[in-house]
Amino acid sequence: MNGFDTAWLPPEAFGPLGARRTLIRGSGPLVGTVRDEVARACERFGGEVVRDGSYDLLLEVTDGGLGAEEFTCAREGGTTTVTASNGHGLLYGLFHVVRLGAQAFTGGWPREVHRPATELRMLDHWDNVAVHPVMGQVERGYAGGSLFWREGRAREDFARVRAYGRLLAACGINAVCVNNVNVHAVEARLLTDRIGEVAAIADVLRPYGVRTHLAVTFAAPVVLGGLSTADPLEPAVREWWAAAARTVYAAVPDFGGFVVKADSEGQPGPFTYGRSHADGANMLAAALAPHGGTVHWRAFVYDHRQDWRDRTTDRARAAYDHFAPLDGEFAAGAVLQVKHGPMDFQVREPVSPVLGAMPRTRLAVEVQATQEYTGQQRHVCWLGPMWSEVLGFRPEGESGPSVGELARELVAVSNAGDDPFWTGHPLAQANLYTFGRLAWRPDADPYRVLDEWIGLTFPSAPARLVEGLHAVLDGSWRTYEKYTAPLGVGFMVQSGHHYGPSVDGYEYSPWGTYHFADRDGIGVDRSAATGTGYAAQYAEPWSGVYESAGTCPDELLLFFHHVPYGHVLSSGRTVIQHIYDTRFDGVAEAEKARRVWAGLVDLVEPAWHARVAERFEEQVRGAREWRDQVNSYFLRKSGVPDAHGRLIH
Amino acid sequence: MNGFDTAWLPPEAFGPLGARRTLIRGSGPLVGTVRDEVARACERFGGEVVRDGSYDLLLEVTDGGLGAEEFTCAREGGTTTVTASNGHGLLYGLFHVVRLGAQAFTGGWPREVHRPATELRMLDHWDNVAVHPVMGQVERGYAGGSLFWREGRAREDFARVRAYGRLLAACGINAVCVNNVNVHAVEARLLTDRIGEVAAIADVLRPYGVRTHLAVTFAAPVVLGGLSTADPLEPAVREWWAAAARTVYAAVPDFGGFVVKADSEGQPGPFTYGRSHADGANMLAAALAPHGGTVHWRAFVYDHRQDWRDRTTDRARAAYDHFAPLDGEFAAGAVLQVKHGPMDFQVREPVSPVLGAMPRTRLAVEVQATQEYTGQQRHVCWLGPMWSEVLGFRPEGESGPSVGELARELVAVSNAGDDPFWTGHPLAQANLYTFGRLAWRPDADPYRVLDEWIGLTFPSAPARLVEGLHAVLDGSWRTYEKYTAPLGVGFMVQSGHHYGPSVDGYEYSPWGTYHFADRDGIGVDRSAATGTGYAAQYAEPWSGVYESAGTCPDELLLFFHHVPYGHVLSSGRTVIQHIYDTRFDGVAEAEKARRVWAGLVDLVEPAWHARVAERFEEQVRGAREWRDQVNSYFLRKSGVPDAHGRLIH
Repeated sequence: MNGFDTAWLPPEAFGPLGARRTLIRGSGPLVGTVRDEVARACERFGGEVVRDGSYDLLLEVTDGGLGAEEFTCAREGGTTTVTASNGHGLLYGLFHVVRLGAQAFTGGWPREVHRPATELRMLDHWDNVAVHPVMGQVERGYAGGSLFWREGRAREDFARVRAYGRLLAACGINAVCVNNVNVHAVEARLLTDRIGEVAAIADVLRPYGVRTHLAVTFAAPVVLGGLSTADPLEPAVREWWAAAARTVYAAVPDFGGFVVKADSEGQPGPFTYGRSHADGANMLAAALAPHGGTVHWRAFVYDHRQDWRDRTTDRARAAYDHFAPLDGEFAAGAVLQVKHGPMDFQVREPVSPVLGAMPRTRLAVEVQATQEYTGQQRHVCWLGPMWSEVLGFRPEGESGPSVGELARELVAVSNAGDDPFWTGHPLAQANLYTFGRLAWRPDADPYRVLDEWIGLTFPSAPARLVEGLHAVLDGSWRTYEKYTAPLGVGFMVQSGHHYGPSVDGYEYSPWGTYHFADRDGIGVDRSAATGTGYAAQYAEPWSGVYESAGTCPDELLLFFHHVPYGHVLSSGRTVIQHIYDTRFDGVAEAEKARRVWAGLVDLVEPAWHARVAERFEEQVRGAREWRDQVNSYFLRKSGVPDAHGRLIH
Repeated sequence: MNGFDTAWLPPEAFGPLGARRTLIRGSGPLVGTVRDEVARACERFGGEVVRDGSYDLLLEVTDGGLGAEEFTCAREGGTTTVTASNGHGLLYGLFHVVRLGAQAFTGGWPREVHRPATELRMLDHWDNVAVHPVMGQVERGYAGGSLFWREGRAREDFARVRAYGRLLAACGINAVCVNNVNVHAVEARLLTDRIGEVAAIADVLRPYGVRTHLAVTFAAPVVLGGLSTADPLEPAVREWWAAAARTVYAAVPDFGGFVVKADSEGQPGPFTYGRSHADGANMLAAALAPHGGTVHWRAFVYDHRQDWRDRTTDRARAAYDHFAPLDGEFAAGAVLQVKHGPMDFQVREPVSPVLGAMPRTRLAVEVQATQEYTGQQRHVCWLGPMWSEVLGFRPEGESGPSVGELARELVAVSNAGDDPFWTGHPLAQANLYTFGRLAWRPDADPYRVLDEWIGLTFPSAPARLVEGLHAVLDGSWRTYEKYTAPLGVGFMVQSGHHYGPSVDGYEYSPWGTYHFADRDGIGVDRSAATGTGYAAQYAEPWSGVYESAGTCPDELLLFFHHVPYGHVLSSGRTVIQHIYDTRFDGVAEAEKARRVWAGLVDLVEPAWHARVAERFEEQVRGAREWRDQVNSYFLRKSGVPDAHGRLIH
């Protein structure tokens, strides 16, 4: 195991392509990448890159009116043809052929046009250059160290970064932010005197069509520039940023832009100067615009020093309250990056109302591949179905557009690190791949995407392996939901590291994360009539659906309503019995997945199999701990026995 | 403020002595210390150290049959006379005169003999040589860095250690263990190639009669000696330790001995080799005996990986179960060091049953000055009355001996660090002083000891300051108890750092620390009849007293019994109303103490006053947080409203 072939795109995935005669027409750096890929495959599988004569595959840059990342694919008369208007589209076309496998050279089909539905498909790396005393090298990182940074500097050997760029191109990702949105002192300097390290990374990612972005601190003019203010309307500040952008682009001509977490969880921002977030974002957009860059401005702004005694403040409301009034005020080069839910990447949240409330703003939806609250890559939790649900949500009901149609961009917090398997849980690779493909086409069927990932990762897998992988992954998100916090209420995790259960772990905290369980009932009243009014942040039909406990979907009930334990769900079960039942079911499902995986031992490379098997041991242990703590907590509190008489401690 | 006079023994404390003519007879290093002290005082206050002629004070080493640390004091015909059989006793006599102040030179009184009731009065420093990634420089340290270690080595400047030795001598402490009982890799080597650093510290402490001890790892023969085993019955192991002891004594001729935490919280021990703790301790005692050293073997042994679901295992039982059967098996040079309670330094615990169960074992009682669970030197919590209660407890009832009489030694986990005030909370100095004086005389009235501390720390304090300090300190332990975990049940702290409330923080943990609160009641059934049987580890009358909820003292009720919230205490209140009332009372008392302190602003040196005032802000904030979290938790769980209708969130 060389640590590079342990993901999709092992050499075998190129077998059908590598055995053919391929003609490549066009020039430019990304065409060079295409040429190298094909040549390497042919070397191994006996095919040839031809300069003329007959061929099975034509990869051609033409001026066929295609967009920057588009490609076409057709097969006629025994020849498969891919065209694109530049090398970037051609590279995507090449990987399309690889995904098709033998099928790419079978039969015939008319010209298909493939284009990404979103302009930008980005991974945000929460990587620190210097190891942070609390958060370590990668904040919320569960896959080893950083791919980019080591011992306070950019790595010396970028072979792994190169391989990463290739994996990303193969699933359609075209942008990476290389450092943590919580920008500490050392990392701040990447913007100025240490930009050379960013440029070195950008050079390695560029041949795969991946542009490099940088997280910056809003206070940079003060902490780096020595100015007395970072006021976004102050001319000296604007000029400082403009000059900083010029320097960055001199080093990285295709630099993507800045990512900013401002006025959030202790990070500085425009509020300090009495300015709006549009003022802040627009200033940075103005600095970047001359060079073709954009600023990603995160909407994750809330009061993280809330008083748990204060039931009028609702963290879920915060992003909408802060940003919806600013719709139309953001510059063209400012992207508002919105977490998919109103809280923080819980296993179940409603879709953020911000996504339906800002039609005149360029929106990016942010999801979290790293699994901070969904098992931290120790539990298998394939998030494809969850992301798909989010992207399919229609804020104005069935007749309106989906989130996938409203979003101009998709962003994920990356789950990759220098682990030999890229991700701490080898099966978590599927999250990275699925994210890229859903970002390309938000209405894709996630189970079909999973098929792609299986096909690319385990070329010529026998049916038993394909079925086994589906059995282990398809329902894993819902399994995880079953044994953790129930019915959308969220949190209930141990504080700080967020792994493992603690039902009251965030109940009396300043973080705005409460379930309000007492001896009679549980849940947060976010209705407009009697609660915090959060439900009214949605348009109809959702505001009406969520407003009433009678129409609110079961899986979100406790997010929107405080109900008695005896409240009957639409499933016909009471809330308390649902809590008990799903916990037992969740553990049983985790145990079953472990058994299924054990049965695949003869079909999976031993190190791969062993790592996953080891994670399943921890998952089953963890699931039982969740089951027992949650059940004991609610039995002690409600006094209601399990209807089926199972053991609750 | 020079950082050295901010404790007892500022120069002014020597005023009455320094104005006199003093004759000193005797020789030896500690007599030299006495001579220096007197000379320095005279320089400042105009007195004189005379060689003959008339004098007001005679300090004399005689062969009057006194024990090693004893001294006499008398006043007759205008002359005060202190005698001792050596310099150590004479030094204690000198500090006795300083404590008496002007009274030492007023009137007359017959010869009094002063002798310590205990042989050894020790401070254990939980200091790491190298900063530990989780625990920092001082484990559970709330007073800055280590007095001894800095940046991975012994400090270069020992002026502060010298001043520390002097403070310790003045309150009667005669031993210090200079490193953490959790012995990490770097610290292990203090025993061997780094013993020179220990010797340097010992040299500085020696003139104050303080002997130096070292915490060692039981695995030393393996990790340092390269042996394949640390089996205490293996001849090669025994010889390794004997050789190690010889090396230590070559460097530190008056070395005190080893301190060992074995088979506890992950530290290695004799259980690994199927040996008993007596086997382990006796091996080390044998190595030390030829040189006059002792081993302090901690009785803090329990299963810290308990399953919270398992109600048959009771951590409180562990020390007795492990050690009581070994009574009589420990060598003369082995001291069993027993925490005062069965758990871990909670604000209220019963006295450890081990202390009444091992008459044939040399016992040391261990208390914790550092306040890990009692406010971490951010809350004022003078522990004198608590320690006094422990020492006054009579395991066999009124006719039997007290713990203070049973204990041959007293040990405290030190609360001192390199903070300019020595302790993080300046008033926590009183804990250090009180410990020393109670160790000297366990039946001393702690409030009189506090008077001493006030007199020495604030010489010629006006009555208003003396009264104010008593008002703030006298009841502070019970105030702290009132707003934290109720009725002896303990814990309810945030995990890891142990500061601040989390009612369920240790409820589903592996640490054996549970309260079992449900909607009907709370507490741990430790009775013999229906519970874990812990109550039966006591002799009569206590086993009977604790066995029944009807006779168990209120303040320990939930430690011994699980009772309904409506259970009526001997105070006449129900348990739930007691919880509410004491929380409100505790906060009111903390607020009152803050006011009292504010009123002393004109009487206390500004930096001193300000530091304490700042701590009171945090204490009041923290007390309110405790009150509100505990009350909300139990209101939600019990559903019983406060009888007085006060606000519970």
